[in-house]
Formats: sequence, structure tokens, C-alpha cells
Amino acid sequence: MTNHGEVFQALRDHLHKTSLVSSAAELLGWDERTGMPPEGGEFRAEQVAYLSGLVHDMQTGPEIATWLDQLSDWSEADDPHSNIGATVRLVRKDYEKQKRLPKSLVEAIASATVRGQGCWDAARKADDYRQFQPALDEMISLQRQAGECLAEEGQTTYEALLDQYEPDAKADQLSSVFASLRGELVKLLDEIQGSARQVDETLLKKQYSVDGQWQISRNLAEAIGFDFNRGRLDETSHPFCTALGPSDCRILTRYDSSWLPGSIFGTLHEAGHGMYEQGLPQDWYGLPPGTYASLGIHESQSRLWENLVGRSAEFWQCFTPLMQETFGEKATPEQWHASFNRVTPSLIRVEADEATYNLHIIVRFELEQALIAGELSTDDLPGVWNERYESVIGVRPPSDADGVLQDVHWSAGLFGYFPTYTLGNLIGAQLYAAAEESLGDLSGMIARGEFQPLLDWLRKHVHAHGRKFSADELVQNATGAPLSAEPLVASLRERYSLVYDVKSPAVSSNATS
Amino acid sequence: MTNHGEVFQALRDHLHKTSLVSSAAELLGWDERTGMPPEGGEFRAEQVAYLSGLVHDMQTGPEIATWLDQLSDWSEADDPHSNIGATVRLVRKDYEKQKRLPKSLVEAIASATVRGQGCWDAARKADDYRQFQPALDEMISLQRQAGECLAEEGQTTYEALLDQYEPDAKADQLSSVFASLRGELVKLLDEIQGSARQVDETLLKKQYSVDGQWQISRNLAEAIGFDFNRGRLDETSHPFCTALGPSDCRILTRYDSSWLPGSIFGTLHEAGHGMYEQGLPQDWYGLPPGTYASLGIHESQSRLWENLVGRSAEFWQCFTPLMQETFGEKATPEQWHASFNRVTPSLIRVEADEATYNLHIIVRFELEQALIAGELSTDDLPGVWNERYESVIGVRPPSDADGVLQDVHWSAGLFGYFPTYTLGNLIGAQLYAAAEESLGDLSGMIARGEFQPLLDWLRKHVHAHGRKFSADELVQNATGAPLSAEPLVASLRERYSLVYDVKSPAVSSNATS
Repeated sequence: MTNHGEVFQALRDHLHKTSLVSSAAELLGWDERTGMPPEGGEFRAEQVAYLSGLVHDMQTGPEIATWLDQLSDWSEADDPHSNIGATVRLVRKDYEKQKRLPKSLVEAIASATVRGQGCWDAARKADDYRQFQPALDEMISLQRQAGECLAEEGQTTYEALLDQYEPDAKADQLSSVFASLRGELVKLLDEIQGSARQVDETLLKKQYSVDGQWQISRNLAEAIGFDFNRGRLDETSHPFCTALGPSDCRILTRYDSSWLPGSIFGTLHEAGHGMYEQGLPQDWYGLPPGTYASLGIHESQSRLWENLVGRSAEFWQCFTPLMQETFGEKATPEQWHASFNRVTPSLIRVEADEATYNLHIIVRFELEQALIAGELSTDDLPGVWNERYESVIGVRPPSDADGVLQDVHWSAGLFGYFPTYTLGNLIGAQLYAAAEESLGDLSGMIARGEFQPLLDWLRKHVHAHGRKFSADELVQNATGAPLSAEPLVASLRERYSLVYDVKSPAVSSNATS
Repeated sequence: MTNHGEVFQALRDHLHKTSLVSSAAELLGWDERTGMPPEGGEFRAEQVAYLSGLVHDMQTGPEIATWLDQLSDWSEADDPHSNIGATVRLVRKDYEKQKRLPKSLVEAIASATVRGQGCWDAARKADDYRQFQPALDEMISLQRQAGECLAEEGQTTYEALLDQYEPDAKADQLSSVFASLRGELVKLLDEIQGSARQVDETLLKKQYSVDGQWQISRNLAEAIGFDFNRGRLDETSHPFCTALGPSDCRILTRYDSSWLPGSIFGTLHEAGHGMYEQGLPQDWYGLPPGTYASLGIHESQSRLWENLVGRSAEFWQCFTPLMQETFGEKATPEQWHASFNRVTPSLIRVEADEATYNLHIIVRFELEQALIAGELSTDDLPGVWNERYESVIGVRPPSDADGVLQDVHWSAGLFGYFPTYTLGNLIGAQLYAAAEESLGDLSGMIARGEFQPLLDWLRKHVHAHGRKFSADELVQNATGAPLSAEPLVASLRERYSLVYDVKSPAVSSNATS
């Protein structure tokens, strides 16, 4: 008779060992981006490839199938949301997904990704979309094949791709929420552009010493709750967050002496990601109960701390003295708040403000679905891109370099990835609203620098659950409602009512009801 | 029929893959000592242990025995000093050594090492040798067993241990050279202590900013030839050097604002190690032709740059302007030189000056041989230690904490390791003398900041050969003579003749001939 407990322990040990190797590979990547000597790259690539190969072998070993088979009749795994049940269920899902992809396709995608990124990089520099088009065609075809292999019953090809980043997400549901968001954002943008009040960037473009920015960044990350005993903050050119172990989370930011928001909001954003990693159940590191739920949920944590907290009026009431002390800059809390919430439609997604950012994503989400479905050809893509930018955001790219070529994602095979950014914004605002309802005077707490209650609320309702619930389930359980655009729109209206005198959320909500 | 070339390539690929994993483990170690978050240690230990286990499995896999067997009749491997011949010969040596150690003994040593270091640390803090004695007894017994297993024909038990760090070294030969060195150093020390000229530490103990020390350290490392495109310099509490790949060598130093020599000579020392690693044949990284010859040879490179170059009068003629520019300190080259060559007998090895350092080593070398041979009991060790310090160095430890408990080595099972430090000093001086004879005006070059000719000479005579020759062979080939104490004594006399007015090397050499 099978000793289920022992079999489960063997599975768990195996996954833990896998995490020892995968986290070592993560360190190789972190080090590569924080200070590896210039000529170390070739050998580093070999190291990462070899360790990644080991991880892949461990994740797809036949012993996993045997263990899963032996556990199939274990009653302790019946509850899909218990630690044991979720582990068995999600390891099986991942394992079966891996097995459904032919090795030849995995290799073809890996190879096309390297070539695709190189080709995209050259094409963007040359502002020559046609140079990139064949690589894009190849990648779309490969991703379509992958989606067809991966699709479970009831999933479209695109949803199967989306599922890699946002498990169980439904394209229809996203389209519907995004459409509602789009309508509200376009209205909001009209009001802002028609406002008599305008904000400029003068305060943000002064010279602020890198040392001072480093101190502020560290202070803010520590203040909101990033644990420096279990993490660190470093500098890099493209900020990110990576967990190298259950008690070793690295966040990175960049400093530009003539663009202050880069380091401040970059740090708050990455600290939000990092605090999520730090809040996952440590004992289950590398297993589903100790893993993030989805990229959308991950992004909800970064956007919540960056925008809902970090761009609030109360946050700058709290930290204006620190800014004055560090930089000798005497701006008022209201001036900082207005500057950090300036809105201006622009061409480039990564530089976009909060009012327009999601419009950039919505354009991509619609276009990539059409590309995968074969309803849009790459011949027509740049033209359609430019039209959509003009109609949705009100700006027309003067070149493909600042248009369809601006993002690396598609060249790297990342179809289904973009919507997770907007999901993060939506979920972050919805969680924040629920936390506010539960905690009471959250604005007052922020003004007083008391962030622990909010973090505790997120720990309890999001972090503690790891991957045991889908994003949809987490949102429903934590907020009592399904995903909706309303909390994000309300929070933006509230902030912009202070800056641009737009209608406050209560009024807007009445107007649309 | 065996295709020897293909078999050799399989062996080479396997060792290369092994180096991919072992160097990833090295990065885990480097990171642990440069900034890992405080609570990351437990998981980090698991990562290192797991990767080290993988490396061990790869190094002892049965396929290696098969390949070696198939290569045993390959004529291309006949030359023991060719790339192929040395690879086959040394992989076989390492493999057979590994196989001679029973797994139970390896595990017992690993476990005793962890406990021994913990016990030593506590005993040293409590200044209580008796608390450490049982762990020391256990470690001596285990190391004796290991030495007995490892000993080849003609090797003593102690030599088998020494062979792990200094392949093919003979204890008798070392004893004889060390005895000659000891006699000369004692005479030299007498002369220095009787000299009318004395030097104090005032100049070194002023406050020098850490930023300035960082700049000087980086400048000096770059000036002597450490390649920052293939390496980097960081800060840590216990400086070291580690190669994370053929083009990624990390050196580390520490900064103390009230002890300038720590960073300067620490950096020159580690840069010497690093330039050796950077000079090893890159194509053979992780294989014998791309590996250092011995710890003694490694140390010869660090000591040569630290002492023969870095403590020379000419070096400070060259860099005094940089010191003035960086720190605003107006000391003359002669004052810097004298301060950096101050001699004063002391209790602690790691703080010792060059005239007395090797006496500390000689005491340890004699005692550890007696311990392994069973001729000295751990009961008597502290008393004998103190007597030897008094008779050899002229200082008597007032406590075991500053006496027999000062070094971690024995608690970590490192018997046969200490002599490599003095070997490094001897070989460094002997190589330097040979380079000077070959290059001509080496002192003039140093005074002008021209270090490339010396580095090129070392590249050609030492670095390029990797592990293809033993330390003895390298010294003989590079200098035309066997290992001798004379070059080190001569170089010390030359430097101290400037500082303490002792007899110059020519006079001394006549006197002893």
C-alpha cells in the first residue's frame, strides 16, 4: 500500500532541491545585472544555460509522474486550496503543461527568442520595422503552435499563452473590464486636458544628488515595510526584483540626477514586489503555496505601493520633511503631490503617467490577440498601431521606433504578458479600497507613516495564500467582489481632483450609475 | 578501436560542465561575503551544499574512470607537461585520491569541520583552550586517517595532507629551507632591534577617508595590471580572491579609516592573486592547464606584488603624488616607505610584518607535523606553543586566545596548509629576483610605474603553465635554481638597509658564504 505521506515528502524534497538550483541561477542573473565584469558574459551565459537545463530536467523528470500517480487517490490532497491539495494540483498542472510542449518546439522558441531580440534591437535602432517583420512572423507562428499545444478544453490559443503568466484568466472577462476602464480613462483624460490647472515638471527635473536619492530610496523602502534583514536594494540599468531564497529578496532601482521620480517610484514599485515575495510562506519556498499567484497579482502589489500609497497626498505630507532634509528643496507637500501626478499623453508606455498607462496596454492587448488569431497581419501592424494610438491616446507615433518597435516583449515571445500590467493596476486599486474599508482611516495612517496595518492586511489576504488561489479567487475573497474597473477609476479621480480639479469619484460614480 | 580524441573531448566537456556548477557555487560564496541579507544564510548554506554535492558527484562519476581507462594507451598523452598529457595525468591523480578516501571519512571530516570551527570560535572568545581540545583531538585523528588513506608510496602521512595544497612537496625539503630562513630571519631581527633608527606608526594611523582609500586601492590594482574588464574589486570583512569564470575574477579588500595599510596592501595582495587567475589559459578554465599550480605558487603571486613591488622604495616614489592628491598628506616617499616597512615582533600572525611573519609560520609547521605524527599531544600544545613563540619570535602569549587559539585553520581540518604561506614568500622573492635579472632595471620600471614587463614575465614563466608543472618544477624552470631562502633574505635585507640601516644583501651574503 502506498504511504502517501512519504511520497508527498519525496515530491516536496525534489521540488525544494529544484529551487536550490533555480535560485542559484537567479543569483547568476542578478549578479550579471548589478556588476559582473564586462567580459564575464560569455561564460555567465553558459552557467545560466547549464543550471537552467538542470532545473528543466528536475521539473520534467519521470519520477514526478510516478509520485503524482501515487498521490492521485490521496484524500488529504482533495481540498484544492490546502497546502497539500494545491501542491499536488498545481505541480500536476505544470508538469502536464511542460509535457504537452514538444521538445523541438521549446528549442525552436528558445532559439527564435535569442534571434528575435537581437533582430528587434537592431531594427529599433535603425527605425526599420521591415527588418524585424520576418522574425516577428516566425515568433507569432511559434507562439501560436505553443498555444495550440497548451490549450486546455475551453481555452482559446491566446488564453493558453496568457495562462502562462495569468493562470485561469479569461480573455473575454479581461476585454470587458478593460473596455469599461478604457471608456472611463478617455473621459478622465478629456477632463484633465480641459482643466484650467496645469502642472509642469520643473520640480522633478532639478538636480538631485544620486547619494541623496539613494538615501531617500532606502528610507522609503524601509518605511513601507521592505525588510532589509531579508533583502537588499541595489542599482541597475533596468530595475527588477528577484527572490534568491525565502529570506533573500533583491530589489533594484536606478538613479538619474536630473529625473527624481525614476528612483523614488522605481524603488516603491520594486519594494512592493519585494514585500510580496517576503510575505510568501517561507516553508513552502519553491512550491505552489510559497509561490506568487500570477503576474497580475505580483504587479498589483508593486502598483499598490507605488501609486495608491506612494502617489497619495498623505504620503507626501509624511515625507516632504525628509525631502527637504535630504535635498534642501523647500517644495510643499502639495507641490510634490501635483508634480508626481502630472498627466500628459505620450508615445512611450514605460514613460506614461497613470491616467494613460493602461491605454497603452489596451492597445497592445487588442493587437496581440488579433495577431495570434491570424486576424491581423504583420504587414498591417504598424499602420494599425499608429491609428489606435491616435484614436485611443491622442498621439500619433512619428516613427516605428517610438511606435510598434518600442517594447521588447513580442520579440521575446511574450504574448499574453502585457495585460498583466493593467490587471496589476486594477487589482492593486481594488485591494487598496477593500483594505481601506476594513482598516478605517488608511489615509490618516499613511500621513502618519504607519504602513504596517496595510502590509498586514495584504499579508493576510494575498501573500499568505501563495499560489493556492487564482487571481480571480484571491480578488473575490479579499474584496468580496469580482474584478472591476471602478476602484481604479475612483482612486484616479480622487487624486486628480486635487491636482486637476476633475470630478471627484462620488460625483463621477453618480454620473455613470 | 577507441577514438582517443573523442574520448578526451568527452572528458574535457564533462570537466567544463563541472566548472560551470562549481563556479556558480563560488558566486554563492562571494555573494554571501559581500552583501547577502543577514537572514539569507540558512538557505544559502543549503544552496552551496547542494551544488557542492553535484560537483562532487560529477568529479567522482564512474564515467571518468572509463574515459581514463580508454585514454591509458594514448600516445598524445605521453608528455606529462603537454595540455593533454597534464590533463589526463592530473585528472587521474585527483580521481584516484578522491576514490581512496572512504565516503564515511569524508562525511566525518565535513561534520567535524563545522563543529570544530564553532567550538574553536567559542573557545577563543572564552580564552579557554580546554573547551576546544576534544574537537582538536578528533580533527587530528580524522586528518591522520585521511593522510594515511591518501599517502602514496614514499609519502609520509603529513606529506599526503600537504599534497592537497602543495602537490608533490616534500616535508624534508621544506624543513631544510625553512631552517635556513629561520636562522637568517632571527639574525636580521636582532640587527633591526639593535638599530639606532626606529620607525613609528603615526603616519599610518592618521584618519584617511574610506572614499580615498577606495580610490587608491582601485588605482593601484589597475596600475599594476589587474584587468577590470575581467574582474572587480569589492569590500568584505575577510579579504579574498575568487575566480567565477575565465573572465570574471573578484578581489576583495577592507577599509579602516584609521589603518591605511590594511586596504592598500590587502588590495595589492589580492590583485596579485587575481592577476594570476587572469593569466591562466582561459580555454582550459576548470581543467589542469587552466588551474593554479599550488597554493604556494598562488601565494607567491600575491606576496610578490604586495611586498617585492608594493613595499619597495621605488613604488612609493611612483605613488606618493597620488597619496598627496587623494589625502592631502605631504609625507615623502621615504616616509611612506619606512612606515610601510616597520618591523616589530608581535603575537598575531595576520598582523605580523615581513621580517617576523615567516617565523610565525615555521612554529606552526613544526607543531602540526608533530601533532599528526603523534609526537606532540594536545595536552602539551599550548605550553609548547608559548615556549616556541618566546624562543623563536621573542614574545610570549599572555593568553591562549592570542596564542594557540588565534588561527581557524586546525579547527577546519587544514593541516599542511600553513607552510604554503611561507612558500609563497620564498617563491615570490625568487621569481622576482629572476625577473629582475632577465628584465634589467626593474626598480627603474617600478619607479616609473611600468609594471607590464614584470607581469608579462610572470605570465610567461608562471601563469601560462597552469598546473602542468609542480611548484618545484616551475621554480626551477623559471629561475634556474631550486627553492632557496636566499632571494627572500636578500630582498628583505635590501629593503631594511634603507629603513633600519641593517647590512645590505651583498655584505650579508659574503658573511655567510
